[in-house]
Amino acid sequence: MLSINHLFNEFFYGVTEIDESSFTPFNIGRNDNLLIDEGFVYFLLEGTIAEYRHAHHQHQVINVYRMHHFDQIGVYELFYPSQNKISYKAITECLVYALAKDLFMELMQKNHEFHQRVLINLINRQSFIAQHYIDLISLSVKERVKHFISFTIDSRYLEQHEQFVVADSHQVMADTLGCNIRSVHRALKSLAKENTIDIVNGKVTISKIQHQKCAVAL
Amino acid sequence: MLSINHLFNEFFYGVTEIDESSFTPFNIGRNDNLLIDEGFVYFLLEGTIAEYRHAHHQHQVINVYRMHHFDQIGVYELFYPSQNKISYKAITECLVYALAKDLFMELMQKNHEFHQRVLINLINRQSFIAQHYIDLISLSVKERVKHFISFTIDSRYLEQHEQFVVADSHQVMADTLGCNIRSVHRALKSLAKENTIDIVNGKVTISKIQHQKCAVAL
Repeated sequence: MLSINHLFNEFFYGVTEIDESSFTPFNIGRNDNLLIDEGFVYFLLEGTIAEYRHAHHQHQVINVYRMHHFDQIGVYELFYPSQNKISYKAITECLVYALAKDLFMELMQKNHEFHQRVLINLINRQSFIAQHYIDLISLSVKERVKHFISFTIDSRYLEQHEQFVVADSHQVMADTLGCNIRSVHRALKSLAKENTIDIVNGKVTISKIQHQKCAVAL
Repeated sequence: MLSINHLFNEFFYGVTEIDESSFTPFNIGRNDNLLIDEGFVYFLLEGTIAEYRHAHHQHQVINVYRMHHFDQIGVYELFYPSQNKISYKAITECLVYALAKDLFMELMQKNHEFHQRVLINLINRQSFIAQHYIDLISLSVKERVKHFISFTIDSRYLEQHEQFVVADSHQVMADTLGCNIRSVHRALKSLAKENTIDIVNGKVTISKIQHQKCAVAL
């Protein structure tokens, strides 16, 4: 498990202005929303958080990856305020550290190296998103759906015989993957028929073994 | 027309270490390659340059936009060296300014504000690419082909009755758009039938009026 020490060693090294007590750690349960307090920025230490941009009834899920390198939540928006409402949902159990925005801004102003590290993290994140969609664009709807299931779930957290339920609706899948809902329906039916997924009460439900079948070679 | 003054006012402001004489300006003709000298970075002042990443026989055209805000060429690769061969081709006539890489690196080290501006430019560029593919993903092949034609050509440079030839092969279009070449063929045939494009000697050829028809509402 990652801890605050990792965050300090890898992201806040050389920063003397703040210490552990500057952060508020908290856990988020699977499928719970991360309620953003405008006065804070957040650092994800463990787990996966999906970012939903709600524009014109579209649920654009931007970042559904396991965030490595202490991905920052709410920092990109400091530089590029969005017109869209953004919400964050924990896909797995998450460990998050909150830092007061004032403190964070002050830190960036005083410490040029830290400022640059923050910016480089944002470049990484944007190119990650770009690569994600570049990978997705040439896939069939069925492959996209498999990819969605695969990246939505971090199977390291699954026990061998545990079932995982994908909480997202078919509409969210469709919007996220750039297909229409009927194609998603068809793809899910076909995947269920070949036993790659189960559908229980309309929700995609998979085991660890099924999850491995969903990993698409990009 | 943009000039070196614009570059200084908008990108190099506050930079006292270099002046106009530090740059080597040059023009690139339409469809010519920008031959990268490893010792330089480049700033695009006028025109459109396409970036091709040659990976596994794929011509991934990453940036085919008109580059606003003095897009930097060869700077992203300083931070994130690519395993892929990258080549640059001028889509329109271009005006480019070259700056010695040593000088550029020194500038970034000495001038924190400039360094941050460079990084913010890279964040912009990556999110631009991400948004481009997010837009593309839900389009049909025909719409993607129209989009390709539309963003490949900057019709401001076209005279009313001038014909513009899209130099890219159908294969490059297919690779760029994430479809297979037969779908591209079909889409082009259909577009020619409805007079949105002409096909002359196998190449897409369009007038200014036809170009306007290609602009896809995303």
